Amino acid sequence: MRTALSCSVLTYCVRKRLVLLSREKLKQQQWRNQSGGSFLELQHYIQNKPGLYGPLGTELRRNVLQQWWTAVVSSKPNVFGISARHSSECLDTLKIVDKKALDELENLPENELREGLARISQHSQGLRTGLLHGALEQYVPSLQLINRKLPFGLAETGVCFRPEPALSDTIGCSSEVTETSLVWFCSPRTSSQWLDYWARQRLQWWRKFALGPSDFSMCDVMSEELREGASRGVKVLYRFPSGSETLETLWSLGDTELLRRHHGSRAKLQCKDGRKSIVPHILLVSANMDRGVLAFLSNSLQHVQKVDSKQRLHQRKVLKLHPTLAPVKIALDMGRGSTSELRQVCEGLLQEFLEAGISAWPGYMDTAPSSLESLHAKYDEMGVLFTVMISESTLENGLLLVRNRDTTIRETMHISEIRQFLLKYISAAENI
Amino acid sequence: MRTALSCSVLTYCVRKRLVLLSREKLKQQQWRNQSGGSFLELQHYIQNKPGLYGPLGTELRRNVLQQWWTAVVSSKPNVFGISARHSSECLDTLKIVDKKALDELENLPENELREGLARISQHSQGLRTGLLHGALEQYVPSLQLINRKLPFGLAETGVCFRPEPALSDTIGCSSEVTETSLVWFCSPRTSSQWLDYWARQRLQWWRKFALGPSDFSMCDVMSEELREGASRGVKVLYRFPSGSETLETLWSLGDTELLRRHHGSRAKLQCKDGRKSIVPHILLVSANMDRGVLAFLSNSLQHVQKVDSKQRLHQRKVLKLHPTLAPVKIALDMGRGSTSELRQVCEGLLQEFLEAGISAWPGYMDTAPSSLESLHAKYDEMGVLFTVMISESTLENGLLLVRNRDTTIRETMHISEIRQFLLKYISAAENI
Repeated sequence: MRTALSCSVLTYCVRKRLVLLSREKLKQQQWRNQSGGSFLELQHYIQNKPGLYGPLGTELRRNVLQQWWTAVVSSKPNVFGISARHSSECLDTLKIVDKKALDELENLPENELREGLARISQHSQGLRTGLLHGALEQYVPSLQLINRKLPFGLAETGVCFRPEPALSDTIGCSSEVTETSLVWFCSPRTSSQWLDYWARQRLQWWRKFALGPSDFSMCDVMSEELREGASRGVKVLYRFPSGSETLETLWSLGDTELLRRHHGSRAKLQCKDGRKSIVPHILLVSANMDRGVLAFLSNSLQHVQKVDSKQRLHQRKVLKLHPTLAPVKIALDMGRGSTSELRQVCEGLLQEFLEAGISAWPGYMDTAPSSLESLHAKYDEMGVLFTVMISESTLENGLLLVRNRDTTIRETMHISEIRQFLLKYISAAENI
Repeated sequence: MRTALSCSVLTYCVRKRLVLLSREKLKQQQWRNQSGGSFLELQHYIQNKPGLYGPLGTELRRNVLQQWWTAVVSSKPNVFGISARHSSECLDTLKIVDKKALDELENLPENELREGLARISQHSQGLRTGLLHGALEQYVPSLQLINRKLPFGLAETGVCFRPEPALSDTIGCSSEVTETSLVWFCSPRTSSQWLDYWARQRLQWWRKFALGPSDFSMCDVMSEELREGASRGVKVLYRFPSGSETLETLWSLGDTELLRRHHGSRAKLQCKDGRKSIVPHILLVSANMDRGVLAFLSNSLQHVQKVDSKQRLHQRKVLKLHPTLAPVKIALDMGRGSTSELRQVCEGLLQEFLEAGISAWPGYMDTAPSSLESLHAKYDEMGVLFTVMISESTLENGLLLVRNRDTTIRETMHISEIRQFLLKYISAAENI
């Protein structure tokens, strides 16, 4: 027994190392398989390691999280945002250990080692692996705010840590995951209807921002795959080129988790359901938003083929991200003409956009000359909604050329109209 | 030597426990001392432990972080948001250890314990204690985006972990801290001017949202307090009732950190400064935003005394948060009248606000009757900007009473004007 265990620990780290290495390879492979390896080419979004975002990826994830918050928290009067800690003494899967304490331990005589180890293991804080914990903790203080009236929800977004992601489950799932979570408290008799309600809402949300909505689907969780304590479950799936993956799950968890967390003290947990006092049932709606970002990227990426006048085939990558999600809404570039004057116009326009909260790309700052063709190709790959070209004629009559990413049509517009045009375009896309 | 060490580890955890307990007490004490213990009373914002936010505190922190992002990233064309991982193999202060591996270790025979321990200590991921690490890592991939042109910045917000917060330094500083960080890359000859520029910008930012701007101040860091490798430092301070605390620090770090991180390979680090190629110098601008939230709360809280017609003294707490930071902009309540009809008006108005992105409080849902006086007292303490009262007369002529938190003046307004009025009020406050 001893030897078996000892052996297992002695090989633990070597094995772990090997598993990590092979997993890293597998991940990169899976990565490459995603829509023909094109994630890797979207380098400003995703760097060549899972979980690492470039500047555009950071903004895209911010936009996705912001849209989730708007849909789940800001637009619902009875859902409240919370913010729990990442670590707690109650958590028990991953421990945060002070390196100094570990090092001191190594210098101990052998007979005291075990004792020291036990102490460290016992007194260390644990890292969270999900967001349910925080909502259960905040449940009691929230009751006063809502006057014990059901239903209500506690929502949170944040990073969770995973001990060892399963090999089969690696797309957008590294040892750190950005999760969104809504914990919904309702009466037992309505919990099934609420599960259906939230499942519909969530699927609608994913599809709202999709270029190909049919790649997002929903299905019931089979009874053998149910989470511990769950009576029902629903998943939202995305069809990646390499196969379907779960983006979000909805669980009907009953009241066990709440009672366990609060040591069964029913009295302080009770809420009003009409005239009765009850302990509410819980729905847990949680998504992996790193994978969500990959799903939107994969869904928005189109390979467009075009034959030019000389019968040559051109392949173009266009990232047709939804207008509200696109990290850059407009790029500003200069045509030929008096550089310093055109530059002034660009700077003024840039300032106008930034002040209106429209993220703009200062392409005119780039001094390396490039053809219009390659400029458009670059911006299409970045998913920039519109490209504005400011030229000599802008100085004369205030007109500029505005190119649309999705239609590739170039339109002439007066410089005074462009800001309002963009704001309307984006808000129209939001309200569809 | 052995015994001394052994002793030190054997008492390590007991001592740690005691320190934790006494620190907890001290924190609560310091907490209580903050503006006469009133943090504790703002329970929807801050719960009775440091680092724990209630629903309103969560929204306040979101708003603060959003304003930081707008000022530092969105409104600057050459600052890019990044998002690095919380853990990395290069980090060495705090280690994430799988509890299972620790437990397996305890079952090992004594002679294998040390070896197992060393392996775990060596192969574990480290948790980040600051955000500089991520920016240095993202420096090289960012160069392509900006075409190697200086200056530019990489910005990030996120949670960092602290091993053992010093006892003297506990206000808003638990073992987890929400940090904001801007790493600014510039030519060596301009780094001093840029430090002055960013220091001015940051102080202005803090003061913009303050009720009493003079409580925020700036000073140079003394040479004996300089961070390792820094040639200059500037701090932004806030005068809490219990004493001044540092909210933000700006360090001029030269090029050592960048060279060290990339093992001195100058070639791939070089940027253009006019015609020359150079390795840029770094400025690090980082703030503790948990403490920032406490500073804004402390700064906005006013105790107003009032003598009523019967010569009784009333004390009122008003949380005069800046309009853009206030988590709830407007509360909707019903006066006397036909409940179901008034409720319909309230619900319509609530929906209108939420769709316009104005966070509104559905006070009309609260069925417990309360006097107008106590309603206003509650909303003032929550920092709600305006309270709208919908009554029988609203049904007749569309007029409603709007009360201003700061002036306590009640104004009559038509129901069709209120949304526009609010949007204008908030955006006017933003642009001061």
